[in-house]
Amino acid sequence: MRVDMLAIGTELLLGQIVDSNTAWLGEQLAAVGIDTFRSVRVGDNHDRMVAELASMSEQADAVICCGGLGPTQDDCTRSAIADALGVGLIRDGELVAHIESLFAARGRTMPESNLRQADVPEGATVIPNPLGTAPGIRAVLHPRGGGECIVYALPGVPYEMHEMFTLSVLPDLLEQQGERRVIVSRTLKTWGKSESGLAESISDIVDAQTNPTIAFLARGIEGIQVRLTASAQDEQSAERLIGPVERELDARLGPLVYAKDEDTMESVVLALLAERGWKVAVAESLTGGLVCSRLVSVPGASHSFVGGMVTYATEIKRGALGVTAVDVISDECVQQMAEGVRSGMGVEVGIAVSGVAGPDGQDGHTAGEVHFGVVTPDGPVAFGRFLPGDRERVRSFSAITLLDTLRRTLLGLSFGSG
Amino acid sequence: MRVDMLAIGTELLLGQIVDSNTAWLGEQLAAVGIDTFRSVRVGDNHDRMVAELASMSEQADAVICCGGLGPTQDDCTRSAIADALGVGLIRDGELVAHIESLFAARGRTMPESNLRQADVPEGATVIPNPLGTAPGIRAVLHPRGGGECIVYALPGVPYEMHEMFTLSVLPDLLEQQGERRVIVSRTLKTWGKSESGLAESISDIVDAQTNPTIAFLARGIEGIQVRLTASAQDEQSAERLIGPVERELDARLGPLVYAKDEDTMESVVLALLAERGWKVAVAESLTGGLVCSRLVSVPGASHSFVGGMVTYATEIKRGALGVTAVDVISDECVQQMAEGVRSGMGVEVGIAVSGVAGPDGQDGHTAGEVHFGVVTPDGPVAFGRFLPGDRERVRSFSAITLLDTLRRTLLGLSFGSG
Repeated sequence: MRVDMLAIGTELLLGQIVDSNTAWLGEQLAAVGIDTFRSVRVGDNHDRMVAELASMSEQADAVICCGGLGPTQDDCTRSAIADALGVGLIRDGELVAHIESLFAARGRTMPESNLRQADVPEGATVIPNPLGTAPGIRAVLHPRGGGECIVYALPGVPYEMHEMFTLSVLPDLLEQQGERRVIVSRTLKTWGKSESGLAESISDIVDAQTNPTIAFLARGIEGIQVRLTASAQDEQSAERLIGPVERELDARLGPLVYAKDEDTMESVVLALLAERGWKVAVAESLTGGLVCSRLVSVPGASHSFVGGMVTYATEIKRGALGVTAVDVISDECVQQMAEGVRSGMGVEVGIAVSGVAGPDGQDGHTAGEVHFGVVTPDGPVAFGRFLPGDRERVRSFSAITLLDTLRRTLLGLSFGSG
Repeated sequence: MRVDMLAIGTELLLGQIVDSNTAWLGEQLAAVGIDTFRSVRVGDNHDRMVAELASMSEQADAVICCGGLGPTQDDCTRSAIADALGVGLIRDGELVAHIESLFAARGRTMPESNLRQADVPEGATVIPNPLGTAPGIRAVLHPRGGGECIVYALPGVPYEMHEMFTLSVLPDLLEQQGERRVIVSRTLKTWGKSESGLAESISDIVDAQTNPTIAFLARGIEGIQVRLTASAQDEQSAERLIGPVERELDARLGPLVYAKDEDTMESVVLALLAERGWKVAVAESLTGGLVCSRLVSVPGASHSFVGGMVTYATEIKRGALGVTAVDVISDECVQQMAEGVRSGMGVEVGIAVSGVAGPDGQDGHTAGEVHFGVVTPDGPVAFGRFLPGDRERVRSFSAITLLDTLRRTLLGLSFGSG
């Protein structure tokens, strides 16, 4: 079954609002095995919307429209669907009563214009909106090429739309679809290898797979994700399809996979620390608090994270952390920083990062040169690396690289060259 | 001139990524008076992309494509444009050398597949990508209905796309547009008042304006922006239109406006500190480094920022900052934190924040209760506030509120109730 999407609203085209509705719908549809091949955004323009509905209904089994159901003159979804059907609008008495009661309950006078929301194209049915005044519409178009296309019109307000999709549209679609299939996916999050390098290293596995499928998702500073998606009659069967492929990928990718599904680099690191009963303190220079902030973003972080020092100025590195290294962009410096924050905060593990974020170089070092240090009860580790990108990216890459270094240290893994 | 948009990527349809690129492009185009009537998303599917290009080129003067320029087999933008033109792909020697040099500079071996990024449709030109390996493409389609449609293909990675649009695509579009009108805009960035409250307070000015126009842009944790956009024959005339309206808004909004245009809360705060010759140190609890990180994000931050302490655990607040307050979520505590980091790092100004990020309450305080402290040579300031939202939003709101508190302190302003 193919369901395409049409988002309506001039503010979407002007970039005043980012259209997150169709992404949300896409995810819901994919989860039940319904395909989306195309999604379109148009402004609040009656004629363009009618034309779009006509052409989309030629290709898809159903079209979900979001937006354009408000009470103002520029909300044209109701009349566009009526025109696409070749019928008129009828004011629905029950809807009038419902909308009036909503205003009364809130103690507000209803502007006359709100009654436009009670207009329904002849022959269409109403999709109830439990959370707002704009009811949805369900209509069946008969495209020129033959067949049928169901049009669902939902409001653009995300929480109203989510509720109406879940309560009314999805059950209706599943009924249309007949045979019910369940989709299960697993995400392997990797750090330290480029997308093309990763793709090459597992291309034979990817090529051999049809169910589960394997896709690559570039997640910027969070690395590359490998997503397995299996479709089966029930969840257990889907898991049985994913299992062997996941194990094969795990074996091939090894330590490149730092987390799965909802886990993050910081949640994994905190869990590894908790396993050992160790606490960590952080000393940061160019990252300026990004590493601490990532750790604090995990609820319950206080179990394994006590705090950190942002030693941006050289004199603070020396005064607060006891750094004696002449060159503060060096392995020696980050090791001293890690040792300094570790003993200063009285914990088992100290980690540290220092480098040149740019745009300019510093003390004979070029922008992008960054050093990482980790000190645990098992001893110190320190190394340097060149990171690409502008100031913001160098800082973000540095933060995740330091966390990954701690992860690898805790797991007893080597430091690959990426 | 009409420029429509085509975003490419199965991950967009599956909802794995929210398409923010076309919103960004829509905003840039609207700012120079170029219309967008339609934006379409398709998956990584060669044939559908060719069909889409053919139909879009019938309607628009230009189409901007984002995505599908990566090195893997499923990246099909290059070949789809070639097919839409009815030509083949030619491997560009200069691009091969450029891509090889990028890998060499990072000390990585180039996977053979990356050379696909050097393929260019015959007759098309290359749009340089200063920030990545994927070059862009500019091609001229001749739709069946006659006329011409320029296709610009850019990568889906936002920061690469932004740079290439600004450097290459926008100047080209303005040249195509012929009659050159200059658009000048001024952005007033506000913090501390809701969009509806802000709109009400300046509604008479907004209603009276046509050139410049006045628009509100909600920027989440960065507050609400008021954007003035004037169009005129040259920059000077546009500036003359903006000037009086800007002064009227400045007078009305007063200290709510924390920055203009490219300035940010942190750049403004650093500039105010530099004016006085003061340096600042930061003590953070729930924000966990976010405040320091915002300050460090400004190039040259070291002029006025020396460093900070992330004192997440209570014992670190006491040990490292000398906090004696029994209740660590209190005005007394943040004032002691600010004094502690100020004297510990030997600077004129100390700022501090402590509170409950949630999701759970802590020590009898509910999630969202946050306290802010600032100590300067003129004395201490401390106050508490309830901030809305989940853990992430409470932390982000706390960080900007602390910076805004320092700004208001340095300017001798009062602390509004927002």
